[in-house]
Amino acid sequence: MTRRDLLQAMFQAAIGAASPALCVPPHLPPPPAGRTVVVGAGKAAAAMARAVEEHWTGPLSGLVVTRTGHGVPCRRIAVVEAAHPLPDDAGMTAATRIVHLVAGLSADDLVLCLLSGGGSALLALPAPGLTLAEKRAVTAALLRSGASIGEINCVRKHLSAIKGGRLAVAAAPAPVVTLAISDVVGDDPAVIASGPTVADPTTRADAIAVLRRHGIAVPAALAAGAETPKPGDPRLAAATVRVIATARQGLEAAAAVARFHGWQPLMLGDAIEGEAREAARVFAGIVRSIRDHGQPVAAPAVILSGGETTVTVRGRGRGGPNTEFLLALALAGVAVDALAGDTDGIDGSEDNAGATIAADTLHRAAALGVDGAAFLADNDAYGFFAALGDLVMTGPTRTNINDFRAILV
Amino acid sequence: MTRRDLLQAMFQAAIGAASPALCVPPHLPPPPAGRTVVVGAGKAAAAMARAVEEHWTGPLSGLVVTRTGHGVPCRRIAVVEAAHPLPDDAGMTAATRIVHLVAGLSADDLVLCLLSGGGSALLALPAPGLTLAEKRAVTAALLRSGASIGEINCVRKHLSAIKGGRLAVAAAPAPVVTLAISDVVGDDPAVIASGPTVADPTTRADAIAVLRRHGIAVPAALAAGAETPKPGDPRLAAATVRVIATARQGLEAAAAVARFHGWQPLMLGDAIEGEAREAARVFAGIVRSIRDHGQPVAAPAVILSGGETTVTVRGRGRGGPNTEFLLALALAGVAVDALAGDTDGIDGSEDNAGATIAADTLHRAAALGVDGAAFLADNDAYGFFAALGDLVMTGPTRTNINDFRAILV
Repeated sequence: MTRRDLLQAMFQAAIGAASPALCVPPHLPPPPAGRTVVVGAGKAAAAMARAVEEHWTGPLSGLVVTRTGHGVPCRRIAVVEAAHPLPDDAGMTAATRIVHLVAGLSADDLVLCLLSGGGSALLALPAPGLTLAEKRAVTAALLRSGASIGEINCVRKHLSAIKGGRLAVAAAPAPVVTLAISDVVGDDPAVIASGPTVADPTTRADAIAVLRRHGIAVPAALAAGAETPKPGDPRLAAATVRVIATARQGLEAAAAVARFHGWQPLMLGDAIEGEAREAARVFAGIVRSIRDHGQPVAAPAVILSGGETTVTVRGRGRGGPNTEFLLALALAGVAVDALAGDTDGIDGSEDNAGATIAADTLHRAAALGVDGAAFLADNDAYGFFAALGDLVMTGPTRTNINDFRAILV
Repeated sequence: MTRRDLLQAMFQAAIGAASPALCVPPHLPPPPAGRTVVVGAGKAAAAMARAVEEHWTGPLSGLVVTRTGHGVPCRRIAVVEAAHPLPDDAGMTAATRIVHLVAGLSADDLVLCLLSGGGSALLALPAPGLTLAEKRAVTAALLRSGASIGEINCVRKHLSAIKGGRLAVAAAPAPVVTLAISDVVGDDPAVIASGPTVADPTTRADAIAVLRRHGIAVPAALAAGAETPKPGDPRLAAATVRVIATARQGLEAAAAVARFHGWQPLMLGDAIEGEAREAARVFAGIVRSIRDHGQPVAAPAVILSGGETTVTVRGRGRGGPNTEFLLALALAGVAVDALAGDTDGIDGSEDNAGATIAADTLHRAAALGVDGAAFLADNDAYGFFAALGDLVMTGPTRTNINDFRAILV
């Protein structure tokens, strides 16, 4: 097995460990006496709905919204595709229908809510007084600012009529069971897809502070809006959440592949954040330590990590945090084989999941007349790896446990 | 022992492991048939000269230049104090005298050259055609730019009449034995104090590329100057270098202290680079992994690392990379006890070595009306920790093995 094949096998193992077909069935609740309504949103939502259909005994109806291209055919649950990361009319229509589907149910019924990363943007129902265009503008500004997903989702909850527990409020008194695939650092259900069925510990004041911190204008509707339901709110008493897949499970699956092939995993966890290019310099230092001193582990080792690095866009190129991480790692001069990719198959807003580097990446680039430093300065890591033919393309994986990085030392 | 005491004990152990009194004597060469001339530069230079005097058998003379405040009395070797990090006339006069001291020696004589971090700025002898003011202006621009020490020293060598092997050329045919305390990532003798006695693998073209990368004007004298001696140059055939203390030794000493007190060290090596505040976010992720998942080590653990993070100055406050790292780590929300400090006793250009944080740092700051995020945005980590009384002040340590970070989890 080549090093690149090993990297690909670890990435596939991480994605596979989080696949809805594997993770959903063990967590399905018993059927209720009354009706079961399935709702949901996220890049995994259609695949999760399919897994429910295949294992559910009893009647079932509902609607889930997923990102364009991430749908799979379902027989009893409607699947709507909508835009991501900027919400569109399809997402807004779907969110409106979801709120209507769960309204008027009784305590004998059940709402099964299927959430995953991307759900926050897909479930777009502007709060009263706000237009979808305003919501889009604020979201776009946040995505450009280098804000964390936690910060972005705090704002989203307070611009929304469905997020931050409001969907569960709409469903009360029906019990709500939420199954969530986590794409957020810390696996907090209140953050995944902006927690439409979970009490919201953040406040309007927090959301306003995030916008101010990043120099973004505060919409008037946010300053004047209603608060989200807070922990202890009786309207959420019948709502429970199970996180059924996490980045850590994916990393453990990759570690098993590594061990099988004789590489010792160094697990740096599922919570790595920071500017992608600077995180790469930190990782380069750890590579040097393993290579030069055998610390904290002896080579051959594979540094595995997840989490979510960010890119503060200053140039005009294309690329997400995973390709930017890899380009910076190559430029740090440690000459390693590595793969970084988003487990949803989409690095940033591109059509690639990530890319790979090898010891000869910069030499090959130079032979092609491709200046890595210039591409990095222009935030054009996508262009760099496209020129080298080293993009990793998976297509939509229909799950999402955040970023995945593997570095062979 | 409190956690803060443990952090301080580890920091002191790291500094102590690199002290000239400990490291210099085992590496002294046998006396020559002829004269012995001691020269040197760096924050440890005077302490190194003192260690030579105390263990040398035979006649001895010479001159070393150290940073203002880092001198110690010597009897036979002159000690000059000069400015750092921006060179001044005292450094220039000392450099001129050093070049004269080594000129005209024979193959029976010996030049003992004592180098340590800071030597690059202290040994300021502008290349022909360049004024000290021009040299200072370029150095100041580089220090502000976020350039690495490797990049800064590449430029310094090509603006200098003494660095990049030129001192050894001046001493030929006398043998030159260099004892170096490393403050650079990788411990490359050609980089420590800009390698005045070591062949220079970098070129004028490299130096010009560094300046262009950081948007700094290229002095005419650099574009037109002579090349430094390259590896294999016969004029450097009698020059040898021994690196007698490194960051890794300091980290090992700190690890021994940690183990003695029941904390498992996680050694992330001596080569951590990157923007300090972003490196802190990466470390926060590793803290979360240890705390939440026991990976890559179980708590109680201490994350130890060295290297050199950098600060790109955008605000108007005070502070070096170690305080900025700590403030960002506190703001990352992991609530740990940690110490970060420069082993030379000077974080950036301040009078503190570093600082400490504890689980209650942000609460104590809030009680004082001190907004950590605002201080970080203004690059005023010094002001933040000064307000809290949490600066670590060692005074000049008279050694220098770069940054030291310890995080208790």
